[in-house]
Amino acid sequence: MRVLSNEDVDQLLTMPECIGALEEMYRDYAMGQALLVPRIDNLSPSTEPGAYYAFKQMGGAWPRRRVQALRINSDIITHPIIAGKPRRVKEPKAAGRWVGLVFMFSSETGALLGIFPDGAMQRLRVGAANGIALKCLAREDARTLAIIGSGWQAGGQLMAALVARPFEQVRVFSPRSESRTAFIIEAQRNYPKIDFRSTDSAEECIDGADVIMAATSSMVPVLEPSWLKPGVHVSCIKTQELDQAVLDGCDRVVVHVTAQPKQDVNVMPGTPNVNAEHNSGWWNAPGNRFAEYQELAQLVAGNSGGRRSPGEITCFVNNVGSGLQFAAAGALVLDKARAAGLGHELPDEWFSETVHP
Amino acid sequence: MRVLSNEDVDQLLTMPECIGALEEMYRDYAMGQALLVPRIDNLSPSTEPGAYYAFKQMGGAWPRRRVQALRINSDIITHPIIAGKPRRVKEPKAAGRWVGLVFMFSSETGALLGIFPDGAMQRLRVGAANGIALKCLAREDARTLAIIGSGWQAGGQLMAALVARPFEQVRVFSPRSESRTAFIIEAQRNYPKIDFRSTDSAEECIDGADVIMAATSSMVPVLEPSWLKPGVHVSCIKTQELDQAVLDGCDRVVVHVTAQPKQDVNVMPGTPNVNAEHNSGWWNAPGNRFAEYQELAQLVAGNSGGRRSPGEITCFVNNVGSGLQFAAAGALVLDKARAAGLGHELPDEWFSETVHP
Repeated sequence: MRVLSNEDVDQLLTMPECIGALEEMYRDYAMGQALLVPRIDNLSPSTEPGAYYAFKQMGGAWPRRRVQALRINSDIITHPIIAGKPRRVKEPKAAGRWVGLVFMFSSETGALLGIFPDGAMQRLRVGAANGIALKCLAREDARTLAIIGSGWQAGGQLMAALVARPFEQVRVFSPRSESRTAFIIEAQRNYPKIDFRSTDSAEECIDGADVIMAATSSMVPVLEPSWLKPGVHVSCIKTQELDQAVLDGCDRVVVHVTAQPKQDVNVMPGTPNVNAEHNSGWWNAPGNRFAEYQELAQLVAGNSGGRRSPGEITCFVNNVGSGLQFAAAGALVLDKARAAGLGHELPDEWFSETVHP
Repeated sequence: MRVLSNEDVDQLLTMPECIGALEEMYRDYAMGQALLVPRIDNLSPSTEPGAYYAFKQMGGAWPRRRVQALRINSDIITHPIIAGKPRRVKEPKAAGRWVGLVFMFSSETGALLGIFPDGAMQRLRVGAANGIALKCLAREDARTLAIIGSGWQAGGQLMAALVARPFEQVRVFSPRSESRTAFIIEAQRNYPKIDFRSTDSAEECIDGADVIMAATSSMVPVLEPSWLKPGVHVSCIKTQELDQAVLDGCDRVVVHVTAQPKQDVNVMPGTPNVNAEHNSGWWNAPGNRFAEYQELAQLVAGNSGGRRSPGEITCFVNNVGSGLQFAAAGALVLDKARAAGLGHELPDEWFSETVHP
């Protein structure tokens, strides 16, 4: 049993490799050769008044690689008032740190193979999914990218976009100019040949862009339907970033997982402040067209074709994550960690037993 | 983060303590003060033809003790033909061992507090649930106990029964006499004052007994309705042991968890041999009366009363486990392990992170 760190994962797993592993998994999933374990959120009161405890679990089995992944998040959620608005905050209460973990099991022997924090892989797999959609749906000649958002997830989106297309110009918008500047300074260092530009509004950012990637923590839409021009490809990392009007303005919408339009939720009676998080978004709204949308795995498998014309407006909604992404990327990381001798090895006997129920 | 063994759990947790912890938890659960995370079975093909991989997860949050438990089982299942009948076998493929684990988290900080194998606690909590039901429902003057089954679970049932009532005679039946004899030799050593008797049939075993506990791996009923006499209390550890006819012969039936009559199942297409396990049992049969039955937690909380008359025939069906049992017993075990300095302590930083998605 091997314990890895986020640093190990970042060192072992490149974005092109992550994209490759996920594409292989999506093709199997499209053929019914992988099992999705739907995400379930379990919410109960935490210690402080107004706070709640969110225990989230998702997973997946991928027989080709003989793995089962389970990813959990164990978060204390509060809703402080920031700039006059209640904001959803995950509090780092574990000695100043957060707790999200991936557990990898062998579906050949049952053994627990590894444990690692979810952060580094989470960013890579969200980026990879949107990068794969971009690869399938954006115009081949796309050279200008607009990124709405300048946080940690925006960095993953940039990495993935550059694997999919040779973008020459990247515009960045987020409300705080310091955050944009910091993002661009780091990006410029990583990609010195690309023309990075900071923009003062979302509309300016996306004007004339071939591809628009939203990568924010916004709970309200970040694009207007009228901004979408023929030939553009749009994506987001959470459903709240795009509303039904934007989706209706697209010629084609692909979602990440159709099997689970939203997470299942178990809530203890009396758990405070859970409504905002779990009852919002277009996929709950009357008249949503979720059932009509295609699924990323079908796109990757070639079952629903790529871009159909230069003028088509395409959209990818990363509506909910899939534990299968952790199964695919996790199997690769564990193989590479074993080969490199990275991580802490613990006795397998600690995590198995001589009796069974 | 503390890693414990089955031996640690057995050493730290006595049956009376386990019963006490579970009773406190059931009272809270009856008041809506605990969150059940339903059991989900995820089934996919394993490597060998005919085998499948079963990844099972269940859990629960208990705010009073500020814990969230997650219990998983990672099993390779085969169906070899034994004595002419297909039998369901969990194969110890992890270097000759099985893999079932309990993960304990803090709902105050989010931190992973501990990991331990599930075996020792599994037996204690199954026994404890049936012991609690016995305490509530059996006659106060019950002195004769019949146990159908002589395996590992039967031992847990015996321990719990003796906490609930001062039984003087215990009869044991199971098909193989060597197994019965071995069980009785060990039981006699642990409880020298009790009159243990080996019986050659189930009917002889239960004839005149005040309490009947089924604790078998049988997939078919082990009792006949006509065997039940006024005043007897009957219990089982899985639904297959009692059929609807037996339940209809009881004046009152209490089940462990009404919120989840059976486990939810995700099955990958093409997974072999899963039907027998997951589509059998009276709770799927037309005409089952599951919806009418009471719940153990309501009984413990006093909301549905105990035994109503000396002649009442009562029944407890441990229909499905609850992850909350692991939360309750696990919180106690971790407290005691910390106090005793038992187990392997690992750095908390290995299981937390400086980023969050």
